[in-house]
Amino acid sequence: MVAAAKPIRLGELAARLGCRAVGDPDFVVCGVAALSAAGPSDLAFARSARHQSEVSASRAGALVAPDGVDVGDRPLILSQSPAVDFARAVALLVPEGRPEPGVSQAADVAADASVDARAAISAGCVIGARSRIGAGSVLHPRVTIYPDVEVGDDCVFHAGVVVREGSRIGSRVRLQPGVLIGGDGFGYIPDGAGQVHKVPQVGCVVIEDDVEVGAGTTIDRATLGETRVRRGAKLDNLVQVAHNCDIGEYAIIAAQVGLSGSTVVGAGAILMGQAGSAGHLRIGSRSFVGAKAGLHKDVPDGARVFGTPQLEDRGWHRAMAALARLPDTMRRLRRLERKLGERAPRVGAGDEESPS
Amino acid sequence: MVAAAKPIRLGELAARLGCRAVGDPDFVVCGVAALSAAGPSDLAFARSARHQSEVSASRAGALVAPDGVDVGDRPLILSQSPAVDFARAVALLVPEGRPEPGVSQAADVAADASVDARAAISAGCVIGARSRIGAGSVLHPRVTIYPDVEVGDDCVFHAGVVVREGSRIGSRVRLQPGVLIGGDGFGYIPDGAGQVHKVPQVGCVVIEDDVEVGAGTTIDRATLGETRVRRGAKLDNLVQVAHNCDIGEYAIIAAQVGLSGSTVVGAGAILMGQAGSAGHLRIGSRSFVGAKAGLHKDVPDGARVFGTPQLEDRGWHRAMAALARLPDTMRRLRRLERKLGERAPRVGAGDEESPS
Amino acid sequence: MVAAAKPIRLGELAARLGCRAVGDPDFVVCGVAALSAAGPSDLAFARSARHQSEVSASRAGALVAPDGVDVGDRPLILSQSPAVDFARAVALLVPEGRPEPGVSQAADVAADASVDARAAISAGCVIGARSRIGAGSVLHPRVTIYPDVEVGDDCVFHAGVVVREGSRIGSRVRLQPGVLIGGDGFGYIPDGAGQVHKVPQVGCVVIEDDVEVGAGTTIDRATLGETRVRRGAKLDNLVQVAHNCDIGEYAIIAAQVGLSGSTVVGAGAILMGQAGSAGHLRIGSRSFVGAKAGLHKDVPDGARVFGTPQLEDRGWHRAMAALARLPDTMRRLRRLERKLGERAPRVGAGDEESPS
Repeated sequence: MVAAAKPIRLGELAARLGCRAVGDPDFVVCGVAALSAAGPSDLAFARSARHQSEVSASRAGALVAPDGVDVGDRPLILSQSPAVDFARAVALLVPEGRPEPGVSQAADVAADASVDARAAISAGCVIGARSRIGAGSVLHPRVTIYPDVEVGDDCVFHAGVVVREGSRIGSRVRLQPGVLIGGDGFGYIPDGAGQVHKVPQVGCVVIEDDVEVGAGTTIDRATLGETRVRRGAKLDNLVQVAHNCDIGEYAIIAAQVGLSGSTVVGAGAILMGQAGSAGHLRIGSRSFVGAKAGLHKDVPDGARVFGTPQLEDRGWHRAMAALARLPDTMRRLRRLERKLGERAPRVGAGDEESPS
Repeated sequence: MVAAAKPIRLGELAARLGCRAVGDPDFVVCGVAALSAAGPSDLAFARSARHQSEVSASRAGALVAPDGVDVGDRPLILSQSPAVDFARAVALLVPEGRPEPGVSQAADVAADASVDARAAISAGCVIGARSRIGAGSVLHPRVTIYPDVEVGDDCVFHAGVVVREGSRIGSRVRLQPGVLIGGDGFGYIPDGAGQVHKVPQVGCVVIEDDVEVGAGTTIDRATLGETRVRRGAKLDNLVQVAHNCDIGEYAIIAAQVGLSGSTVVGAGAILMGQAGSAGHLRIGSRSFVGAKAGLHKDVPDGARVFGTPQLEDRGWHRAMAALARLPDTMRRLRRLERKLGERAPRVGAGDEESPS
Repeated sequence: MVAAAKPIRLGELAARLGCRAVGDPDFVVCGVAALSAAGPSDLAFARSARHQSEVSASRAGALVAPDGVDVGDRPLILSQSPAVDFARAVALLVPEGRPEPGVSQAADVAADASVDARAAISAGCVIGARSRIGAGSVLHPRVTIYPDVEVGDDCVFHAGVVVREGSRIGSRVRLQPGVLIGGDGFGYIPDGAGQVHKVPQVGCVVIEDDVEVGAGTTIDRATLGETRVRRGAKLDNLVQVAHNCDIGEYAIIAAQVGLSGSTVVGAGAILMGQAGSAGHLRIGSRSFVGAKAGLHKDVPDGARVFGTPQLEDRGWHRAMAALARLPDTMRRLRRLERKLGERAPRVGAGDEESPS
């Protein structure tokens, strides 16, 4: 499929992007697509001359590309950052659908809630007492805002989102469908007699400006104090953020990552899918945590860690390569033992015996 | 508990299944249950004579079983595929509860949406502009359909489902509670200055006929083009399907699997629980991916892979057996070293030193 | 942030906790906070004298602490279980917000459903035919109760919860936002011809008293019979509980754990985050399953297991330590081989060759 765009002249599009147009400025862009899927009225993009063969094979009518890519006689928007400028072009050409400002008759807004006149509150939404929704914010259908919640300006909350009491959400925050904010943290005290008792979770959640959160992700309220997701952080789907976590600015957290209580994620850190952290760890700024890594100790700033238990980059890759060769290694060891007259080891004895 | 059934004579039930009844055809089946839980008016089943002792111990009043199982003097429905025929019997005896056709007064349907007269739209549902719901489809309470969505015939969408704009859903698709379809894909471009910028996600999701999706699973829309789940694929709960994935016909994806962007899953592939794939991989047709496997490269058609990083079947099982014995292996190595007059290695030196 | 409390005199608070107050009983507690965040009108707590330096540095106006902690001249509530008594104090001082009893005009309750007059049913809730809601139970906005569901007394169900038909929920059960109960289990029979057929899921879910379930967690109905979560069990966010599981009393299941079909979890077992079990396993009473462990066989009562495939405590820690040193170990092995005149092994040969 090709995303349908509002038709626009290439020259005008280039001007709005602040880029130079090469070739026919009156070419009309009608859609955006990947190189392989684009048709003669579509705009596509190429990152660099390394994609020359795909560019040549593409049926795209126009391109965003850097110097050095041969687009034939097709019109071109010259860009030093083609991925970024193409993304900007898409945002211009395929505007996001959004409901009209105003409160749906089928929404339930508390009498003392405050909804800006330029916000859009869709059918099935519930907004609790004393909560505030800022200008330009859009609540798609069936969003629940509990009492005493603050939502800034120009947010987009998709259907099924829940924001529990006392949460504070900044501006330009995007919550995909089914995001669950402010659930109780998981705090229990075993009483030693076989039962466990709930620790009241009376803190809150703070989401700063420009944060985006993926579908089905859960962010729990703090036990005391706050769980905080800092400016510009991006969380993917089905991520678990436990009570009292603190996620740094522009951190990137991929799908199904789980952060135990009081985890601190530094600014610009990247956590790949299904990674997890034990509680009370600090994951350093600009660090990289590999997919499925299981963290049990702090990650230094800028470090790259992998595996469970975690190892640093080179160590992990070597250990994994060695692990794949381990059956062969044991055969080699057995050969040496035979050469030296050692008797055969008991198979499976490893667990019970003490290593030297 | 035993599922209550509409009472039916055994002879009639056998006829409807196309099977032969042995013994009293007038026995009345009043419920269905597992062998261990069944009572004297219940139907149970046995796969083969290997379950003879459970059959003999069971209080079930009647059985579905293949030739060679001794059911005593109880009535029997003879079947070469007892699991399949018992499943068919259950479907006949315990019909699914479904609301009456029609649109609830408490639903919110856009004026230009098209809902077939034989569809059932429950309380709290929201259906957006220009969307279409086919004949016989059931939307349980609080389903959100965004604008420009197509839903085929005889679908069942459970409470809390969200289908975002432009999605196309086939016929006989079953979505369990809280399935989230069409959320934005996770696409960001770092700008090198510590910030990240959103890539607009303007593609769509296509779900083909006979697909079933488990509770809380998320399927993201494509960046450009489409995310596709092909005919008959079955996804369990809390699965993550990222933008531009393509899941093959009759593939089986167990709970909490995570598929990164542009993963292709071949027809008939089976992915076990909590497995994950890096982006842009191809998981071959009829391949088998073990629980918790972490894929970082393609899986050939028909291959069986396990572990993180992935190894093929035999290699992985050997490596894991060897891993369990590794402490013992190191003791054996140390013994050889002593015999050969090698000095003791520095403990813990492995990470820092270069292997030969 | 500090949680605001209903102001209370320290002496009165101590009396209500059944503890002894030391120092000024007229000190007014206005909030509760962690030691590091507390201000002069807040109550904080210290577990033991090991936290003396934090107590001395804290600005907290009053403390809950055991004998032997020096709180200076601040008023003190003496406690042998300071964490428990502080939790009880928080529950007293920061009462949970809850809607007034009664049924919202914006709720949709079936004519033959039974809702106790002391229950609170919020806007957007849907309650199906023949379902019953007990005294004191609170349904926050947009909860869906299907037909034939029983809910006991004093439950709290948060927004977006779904409970499918036939489920039976005890008393004092807390469901965080978006909990999904009673979805179909994942049961399919391959027909050998490339297709798979659904096994009807006609069992139910039973949740006993005092169970708490975290946001976004899914608990599937049984194929036949029941999926059961026993008294006092606590489940964190995004946990998957498959059909026919049986979770023991006061078990603790951390976030993103996945339990395959018919898993039995013993009383008091603790499963850490992202662990998973293959189907039909028994995880023993009071056992401990480490984070990310992948279980493929039963866990004995009281055992501690880790890793994938699982190893018992000591065996796993040794294997992991040995794994980190494996590249060095291989270097040592190569040195011995050279000394004994063995030729160099083929690199990467491990997968294909047979170990001795």
